[in-house]
Amino acid sequence: MTNDEAAIRTVIDAFTAAIQAKDAPAVIATYADDLAVYDLAPPLVQTSRMARDPDLLRQWFDTWDGPIHLDEGQIHIEASGDLAAAWSLRHLGGVKVGDGAQALWFRSTVVLRRDGGTWRIAHVHESVPFAMDGSGKALLELTPEEQ
Amino acid sequence: MTNDEAAIRTVIDAFTAAIQAKDAPAVIATYADDLAVYDLAPPLVQTSRMARDPDLLRQWFDTWDGPIHLDEGQIHIEASGDLAAAWSLRHLGGVKVGDGAQALWFRSTVVLRRDGGTWRIAHVHESVPFAMDGSGKALLELTPEEQ
Repeated sequence: MTNDEAAIRTVIDAFTAAIQAKDAPAVIATYADDLAVYDLAPPLVQTSRMARDPDLLRQWFDTWDGPIHLDEGQIHIEASGDLAAAWSLRHLGGVKVGDGAQALWFRSTVVLRRDGGTWRIAHVHESVPFAMDGSGKALLELTPEEQ
Repeated sequence: MTNDEAAIRTVIDAFTAAIQAKDAPAVIATYADDLAVYDLAPPLVQTSRMARDPDLLRQWFDTWDGPIHLDEGQIHIEASGDLAAAWSLRHLGGVKVGDGAQALWFRSTVVLRRDGGTWRIAHVHESVPFAMDGSGKALLELTPEEQ
């Protein structure tokens, strides 16, 4: 692993730890000033203003009763110059208020930009695929083993 | 727009044109030898072997009766060194065999790598969000105007 890859890994680990700790300012500290987030939830795009709003993050944290578990499969990191990209399958789980235990595997792509010597997240894209059988169902029960 | 951004734009336009022309080898020509695709359709990950298989691409093209329309909203391109990332909302439409007219807006993230002087696509992530109301529905009818 290069020094850049190690630095990028540190930012991604900080993002993950901040989600697990339900620490909104710590999540936002990993974000560039201008970023676009393509989230699991609508809308199509979360602008910087939305993604960097600690109240919106807290509202999401509050939908979980107790800890949020966010794990990662094998991560692929590429870096060159002041740009990096990382992609992986991630596993999210916990107890949703009113809905009980929830867990899913999703795809995560993160683009990072180095600015003033610090790597920050400039773009996040998280998703599951959907069924092509006309049902319009999001495929929430896929696992990496089914590849 | 820098020279790199123009070159990256050219690759993305070639990819789009190849999809619209249902030209499997031309799609694959925009791909790096090793890439991972997170597609609208399952599985969670299309490996290089799958994504670069012209027969699989042709099977998908054959689900469309007549032309595939693939348009793009405003694209954001970042490039540094030999790595680039581009993200945008894209609109896909046409007539699906047996299903009639179909159209949707989706989120597209593309990572490109310059190798031997040529930019190629190393990663594609395409998705729609899903409803968080317990229905498990993929949100296929969102539009950029609803941001």
